[in-house]
Amino acid sequence: MSKYQNLKQEVFAANLELVARKLVIYTWGNVSIIDRELGVVVIKPRGIEYHDLVAEDMSVTDLEGNIIEGDLLPSVDLEIHLAIYKQFPAIKAIAHTHSTYATAFAQARCDIPCLGTTHADHFYGVIPCTRQLTPEEVAGEYEKEIGNVVVETFLERKIDPMQVFGVNVAGHGPFTWGATAGLAVENSVILEELSKMALLTKQVNPNAPLLENYALDKHFLRKHGEGSYFYQSK
Amino acid sequence: MSKYQNLKQEVFAANLELVARKLVIYTWGNVSIIDRELGVVVIKPRGIEYHDLVAEDMSVTDLEGNIIEGDLLPSVDLEIHLAIYKQFPAIKAIAHTHSTYATAFAQARCDIPCLGTTHADHFYGVIPCTRQLTPEEVAGEYEKEIGNVVVETFLERKIDPMQVFGVNVAGHGPFTWGATAGLAVENSVILEELSKMALLTKQVNPNAPLLENYALDKHFLRKHGEGSYFYQSK
Amino acid sequence: MSKYQNLKQEVFAANLELVARKLVIYTWGNVSIIDRELGVVVIKPRGIEYHDLVAEDMSVTDLEGNIIEGDLLPSVDLEIHLAIYKQFPAIKAIAHTHSTYATAFAQARCDIPCLGTTHADHFYGVIPCTRQLTPEEVAGEYEKEIGNVVVETFLERKIDPMQVFGVNVAGHGPFTWGATAGLAVENSVILEELSKMALLTKQVNPNAPLLENYALDKHFLRKHGEGSYFYQSK
Amino acid sequence: MSKYQNLKQEVFAANLELVARKLVIYTWGNVSIIDRELGVVVIKPRGIEYHDLVAEDMSVTDLEGNIIEGDLLPSVDLEIHLAIYKQFPAIKAIAHTHSTYATAFAQARCDIPCLGTTHADHFYGVIPCTRQLTPEEVAGEYEKEIGNVVVETFLERKIDPMQVFGVNVAGHGPFTWGATAGLAVENSVILEELSKMALLTKQVNPNAPLLENYALDKHFLRKHGEGSYFYQSK
Repeated sequence: MSKYQNLKQEVFAANLELVARKLVIYTWGNVSIIDRELGVVVIKPRGIEYHDLVAEDMSVTDLEGNIIEGDLLPSVDLEIHLAIYKQFPAIKAIAHTHSTYATAFAQARCDIPCLGTTHADHFYGVIPCTRQLTPEEVAGEYEKEIGNVVVETFLERKIDPMQVFGVNVAGHGPFTWGATAGLAVENSVILEELSKMALLTKQVNPNAPLLENYALDKHFLRKHGEGSYFYQSK
Repeated sequence: MSKYQNLKQEVFAANLELVARKLVIYTWGNVSIIDRELGVVVIKPRGIEYHDLVAEDMSVTDLEGNIIEGDLLPSVDLEIHLAIYKQFPAIKAIAHTHSTYATAFAQARCDIPCLGTTHADHFYGVIPCTRQLTPEEVAGEYEKEIGNVVVETFLERKIDPMQVFGVNVAGHGPFTWGATAGLAVENSVILEELSKMALLTKQVNPNAPLLENYALDKHFLRKHGEGSYFYQSK
Repeated sequence: MSKYQNLKQEVFAANLELVARKLVIYTWGNVSIIDRELGVVVIKPRGIEYHDLVAEDMSVTDLEGNIIEGDLLPSVDLEIHLAIYKQFPAIKAIAHTHSTYATAFAQARCDIPCLGTTHADHFYGVIPCTRQLTPEEVAGEYEKEIGNVVVETFLERKIDPMQVFGVNVAGHGPFTWGATAGLAVENSVILEELSKMALLTKQVNPNAPLLENYALDKHFLRKHGEGSYFYQSK
Repeated sequence: MSKYQNLKQEVFAANLELVARKLVIYTWGNVSIIDRELGVVVIKPRGIEYHDLVAEDMSVTDLEGNIIEGDLLPSVDLEIHLAIYKQFPAIKAIAHTHSTYATAFAQARCDIPCLGTTHADHFYGVIPCTRQLTPEEVAGEYEKEIGNVVVETFLERKIDPMQVFGVNVAGHGPFTWGATAGLAVENSVILEELSKMALLTKQVNPNAPLLENYALDKHFLRKHGEGSYFYQSK
């Protein structure tokens, strides 16, 4: 049995969860996990529908994208994942979807504003939308450049990816991350719901204010970090 | 067996109903019930997903929030529930969700207007949105202050919580109540549907009028109170 | 066994279909059927949830609303059904829901415009919204007056209820009818879908035109009446 | 056993997939497949609900619409399918639905713009809406004229149906196609999702730009045609 069997199983289950949560159809979307000690990334293989996959099919590559185990090519989005993993060592797993409302914000080229405590419970403020890639970036190593523009967005806007667990790629769709593949998917589910809530909020009241900073701090911090008390224990 | 077993079972079933009705995901939301004779409140424990719970896990506290039975900490929202229970002795059970359309109204900081008889059948007029909490309130006993602002909303606006069985907390989401945990949840389901209908109504016609008061009276009163005739018996 | 058993079974199944099609929750909505030879109307009993009902529970009344068989009171909406049955002898069954999008048009006090062939396949032109009832009508025999205002709408606007199989009661919601209880429900399902399509169409293009009359004629008449050819046979 | 049994089975399964994917209700929608060697088209019979059908019921006709096998009349939309098949020899299967969001664009008489990479992955640019048929066309061989206006749209606007696998008929709804009946249905599913995303995108930002041409090219071509690398192999 593969020494990566546990990783494969975790990634496989998380990919199926994308389907169960109705965030992806057909071959859309993918989840990966990184094991920095073993020096491997495990990701869904490209262009295959979820119901045709088993855990063993998951692709195992090194951090340069070279296939280490398996006959199937990894997701075409692998280079996006790798670029994010390289820049941000704290990220352990990444999920990508084309979920409807999040993608609408990506296509609108708009950040997802923090309008309420549901958002503040999970993402510490605005969820950014990257800039559009240039023709040169698209003509070059396209998927790697997508990863680079994600990294650029967090660095230039001084957003901490351990406080804002996702991003929208302009004109494309969302990537989210977490400490496990399951949590990366959970953040995709929540980002989709926050996107829907944000659009509806503006439809109820186009002048709906951003959540006040003191409320944002309170909600994010009671769940995350030092003084948190939202869960049973820390 | 716990002397609170029946209460725990009722609260547990109502919490699961929130999931079945698609009003909550993950750890979002909670339901509590009060037994004023026994002097206890039973509520979902904090930060645990619904599929990981059994009825025995429900937290039992006194009316000051001290744990009476169980190893798990109660929902962080317990103090909100307690503040409402203390002010309004007629309230027997409370449900809290982040349901999508109701939360959109909360984030928009807008009351849910009564635009039709579906609303009037269940809530006697506008469903209020509280004011936003002040920085001092958020910095202080936050959850208790949320409860206080709910109470303040009903008292200052002279709304009877036995006629309007719910409220939106500004920037946060809805709380509803009823004579049983099941009815508290039912009112959450209905409040979500009314919110969706209200937004859609305004999208069909931005000048849609409020339901006339004589129609509001007729519909609410044929279901509730003295001369009601909507049900088989009273 | 009741001599009305077949009628009860048909009405019961149609009521459950309202739930299955997600047009009603809790006690909302009802279906009735009339047998003009037997002089009876069979309708859902009032204020009871669908999962607590069996076919035998259906209420049987005469055309004045007097209970002929059964212990349960008929739906409070019975008088609405009776008024419609009396005026329009061709109507055999009636369904009432508070389905979301149709109710949004009712609350908006707007007709549902015919914007496409999906509508024209099933309803021969605009689906009317009644006027709002007067305070006097609401204070009087309320449910009967709702029936009267439905009748008035079709007579005054010269709409044929055998070509437009439904109506919205202003501020309330839709009633639909058909040759069987099942077809009455089917028209409720379709009216809901047409309402959603109409709202979305106007959101895509606020200047979307009405379907041209020659296309309306073609689509309605190829399914209904003399020269129809939509089905296998006539 | 019919020599067309495999074709019938493929068409039948694809028709059921329309129901499973929630693109059609009742008798709405249909799928056909053409076998140009055998000179036959297989299509859903007209006016029958999906749950009443078995594979053997599928209608088999020649390319002029004459019934070759089976007792049931073919879909009234057969002539639309035939006109498209005759003009575009590369099309192997066609699906037709009245799916909600796509139909909203048809009723709005608007093209579905390419606003993001989800669209570009599957359709090479704008998905056109035909012109409205004239009174003469509707009064004549109506269904054939619908097919003609689809053909006209692709020829006059110089759109390649092997790059844009679908169309909206003005005031009516979408037709999509593909190399198999299953892929024709898949394109219906995707067109519906793209329509929903496009409307939501414009609601988030009315000034949302079209996807840049260089990004459109990249996404479409990495999945389709010569240098594609989206799938495991070509």
